[in-house]
Amino acid sequence: MTRQSLANHESRITNHVIYPPSLTQLIEALRCLPGVGPKSAQRMAFYLLERDRLGAKRLADSIAQADARVGSCKRCRMFAESELCPICAATKRERGLLCVVESPADVVAVEQSGSYRGCYFVLMGHLSPLDGIGPEQLGLPELDALFQQGEVQEVKATTAAVQKSIDYNTEVTARAASSAAIARDAAQKAHETLVRLVEKNDSE
Amino acid sequence: MTRQSLANHESRITNHVIYPPSLTQLIEALRCLPGVGPKSAQRMAFYLLERDRLGAKRLADSIAQADARVGSCKRCRMFAESELCPICAATKRERGLLCVVESPADVVAVEQSGSYRGCYFVLMGHLSPLDGIGPEQLGLPELDALFQQGEVQEVKATTAAVQKSIDYNTEVTARAASSAAIARDAAQKAHETLVRLVEKNDSE
Repeated sequence: MTRQSLANHESRITNHVIYPPSLTQLIEALRCLPGVGPKSAQRMAFYLLERDRLGAKRLADSIAQADARVGSCKRCRMFAESELCPICAATKRERGLLCVVESPADVVAVEQSGSYRGCYFVLMGHLSPLDGIGPEQLGLPELDALFQQGEVQEVKATTAAVQKSIDYNTEVTARAASSAAIARDAAQKAHETLVRLVEKNDSE
Repeated sequence: MTRQSLANHESRITNHVIYPPSLTQLIEALRCLPGVGPKSAQRMAFYLLERDRLGAKRLADSIAQADARVGSCKRCRMFAESELCPICAATKRERGLLCVVESPADVVAVEQSGSYRGCYFVLMGHLSPLDGIGPEQLGLPELDALFQQGEVQEVKATTAAVQKSIDYNTEVTARAASSAAIARDAAQKAHETLVRLVEKNDSE
């Protein structure tokens, strides 16, 4: 045990003796949030208990409620409270046009351009094998299945990372020859599409 | 409305249409955490719902449990699940010696030195009128009351900010003449004490 890790270890022991058990547990639980280390977690716990009990109650309820209600749209994987998200459920959308994006926030960004009338497929991240995020976690098998159904005529990818994910998948699943062709098309159109949308949005 | 605030406003409207209501509510609720802006809150909400449902459940339970169980020690204001914290309840502690600290984390830091056998008073912050943190929020009236009881013989302050808070309070409450004298004493001893404790801790 190094001097530093010994100090950390001792600090944990002292914390456990001095802080009440439910405070120690709250600090540990807050560390599940991305970007929150032991010091931030401690600061957050102190703040909630000392300065914002109402906010704490609201946060606990909101997490529980979102956990109970929010699932994924079965077509596009967007967060949704029903089987289909509002966009996939809308009759006016072009179902032959599919925009593949990394995150739900990208859907909001493209929607704000106001010029896209197709549907989406949300990867919910990008390939990151070290974090355990492979093709399955990104829903690439479902994307393949969507291609196989034949409804999708044109694919747009919004970022290089999305394009890479699709390329990787098509290499791995050589059997999906038709989807590979569509995906490679998408790769060519990817940057053009995004640049166009962003330019249009900026100029308005 | 500036171009930027208009864009923010439009973004919120689009979010509300595209995200399910309980996700929007979760993003808003996460913003009560210190240092968490709209983008971090969104990233945290996505992460909890997409990658760590178990962590989300645990977090919701931990917040609710800590909110229900954790109060303040009635003598020193430290977080505690019973009327007195373990330190104030301990019979072996010198009750005539009081160390005034900003945060519960300072109690842990001083305890780790292993050389302090007195009690504490936790301000839970420092004077910050712009954030609505004045003498009452720091428990300075309770600190005065503790001085008036006559049990406290010696006061140590751990930081310049703590010393400033005590000074400010003694200025405002001119009536508490005896506590002012004790507090001014404390101000002189403050840095020496902390430096000694930290040096001792480092050399071990």
